[in-house]
Amino acid sequence: MAVEYQGSAYRGWQSQDKPRVATVQDSLQAAISSIAATTVTVICAGRTDAGVHATHQIVHFDATVSRSLKAWVAGVNAKLPEDIAVQWAKPVSNDFHARFSATARRYRYIILNQARRSAHLAKGVTLIDQPLDAGLMHQEAQVLLGEQDFSAFRAASCQSKTAMRNIHHANVSRYGRYIVLDIAGNAFLHHMVRNIAGVLIAVGSGQMPVGWTQQVLNSRDRNQGGVTAKPHGLYLVDVSYPAHFELPESRVGPDFVPG
Amino acid sequence: MAVEYQGSAYRGWQSQDKPRVATVQDSLQAAISSIAATTVTVICAGRTDAGVHATHQIVHFDATVSRSLKAWVAGVNAKLPEDIAVQWAKPVSNDFHARFSATARRYRYIILNQARRSAHLAKGVTLIDQPLDAGLMHQEAQVLLGEQDFSAFRAASCQSKTAMRNIHHANVSRYGRYIVLDIAGNAFLHHMVRNIAGVLIAVGSGQMPVGWTQQVLNSRDRNQGGVTAKPHGLYLVDVSYPAHFELPESRVGPDFVPG
Repeated sequence: MAVEYQGSAYRGWQSQDKPRVATVQDSLQAAISSIAATTVTVICAGRTDAGVHATHQIVHFDATVSRSLKAWVAGVNAKLPEDIAVQWAKPVSNDFHARFSATARRYRYIILNQARRSAHLAKGVTLIDQPLDAGLMHQEAQVLLGEQDFSAFRAASCQSKTAMRNIHHANVSRYGRYIVLDIAGNAFLHHMVRNIAGVLIAVGSGQMPVGWTQQVLNSRDRNQGGVTAKPHGLYLVDVSYPAHFELPESRVGPDFVPG
Repeated sequence: MAVEYQGSAYRGWQSQDKPRVATVQDSLQAAISSIAATTVTVICAGRTDAGVHATHQIVHFDATVSRSLKAWVAGVNAKLPEDIAVQWAKPVSNDFHARFSATARRYRYIILNQARRSAHLAKGVTLIDQPLDAGLMHQEAQVLLGEQDFSAFRAASCQSKTAMRNIHHANVSRYGRYIVLDIAGNAFLHHMVRNIAGVLIAVGSGQMPVGWTQQVLNSRDRNQGGVTAKPHGLYLVDVSYPAHFELPESRVGPDFVPG
């Protein structure tokens, strides 16, 4: 399934042991379980944090019952709250795994760069009230490309065995009052995109000097990095899988960005 | 003042006699009154309905106390909920009236044209799940231009003395999955933009024939029109005043539309 969500009301993707903590996984599982008339557990491609959004999260589950694709999409949507929506569903072979089969993830971090907060998308963009130089941010971001050790951009709570990640692209563009960081890689460490955004914002605002991104990366030390940028502007926008699974492409593209 | 709001949580702009009915006017008056340390009543350019939004609502009030512009903007914003935000404030001459001095209002009606509902902007766009022909909708809309009797597009509850209104432009464009109706006129009757959107959607989806907009207009009979389109997609985006008031221009423009 491809799933969209506006994550502001949730303590992230993942189910938690604590009662009364709303998560996207719990809401989705409840809706799917209702249609399946049995308890279903879903696995996602990228476990997003509290307040982070998705336009194209991929999930899989083992269905022990047969339902029409319409039931899996429109039926589940009818059971979901308005801030979560299934876009499509498709049967896959048994060797498909939403997380382990994924070859790449793509995120967009959306900044509203103006003096005043906006009443619109209050929790759907990150407000930065100092002028930002998007060209400079783009230039800085290029040092992140390729297979590298991203220890300096990794949250203390990160449980990954290795800090090596391969970044495929990291583009920063301005669209009027908006600045968008579009970044893709094989996988991301905990808080990695938000920590990258924090460093690029510090350089783009002139708070830190040109070249600081390289310095932080080289240090391999999280304490040398900047603040973790807010979750508000972060969207999981695409996940790639080997072609033989024949999944529909995400619709992310130039027409998606607020232009 | 220029004020933005995401209107989903409000029963429209206007204060109501009923207790516990949230309105934009009440919230704004409470915030301004707090900064002014006295009760302030605000007058707006266009009284939007329940669930309707604004990116550029203009309001005026009589200040009996002196405060810095920073206090009137940042101070008031700090007292406002996150779905209402002041963009600027400016002292005006005594002959300025937000409603009666306005020479034109401009609205945008934003349609998300796809099969599935979206988790994003759930109450900030109108979902139409049948394919729409934006070119045809634009062509139909051209019969609305100029000074005409809009009785057929007027809510039964409308209190205006006359149904004559002068439409300056009515453009319909497609931006990927989005369709935007951009309409400006000297003033609008109650529900007028949403009733126009309802007729254009009916023609654009093929439910009603080409030329129906003209027929509805000619009938001067609300019963001949279509449904009132939902408030979700409607935004007040600009208000015009005579140049001598020297108000800042709204930032509405090509870069505002989801492109």
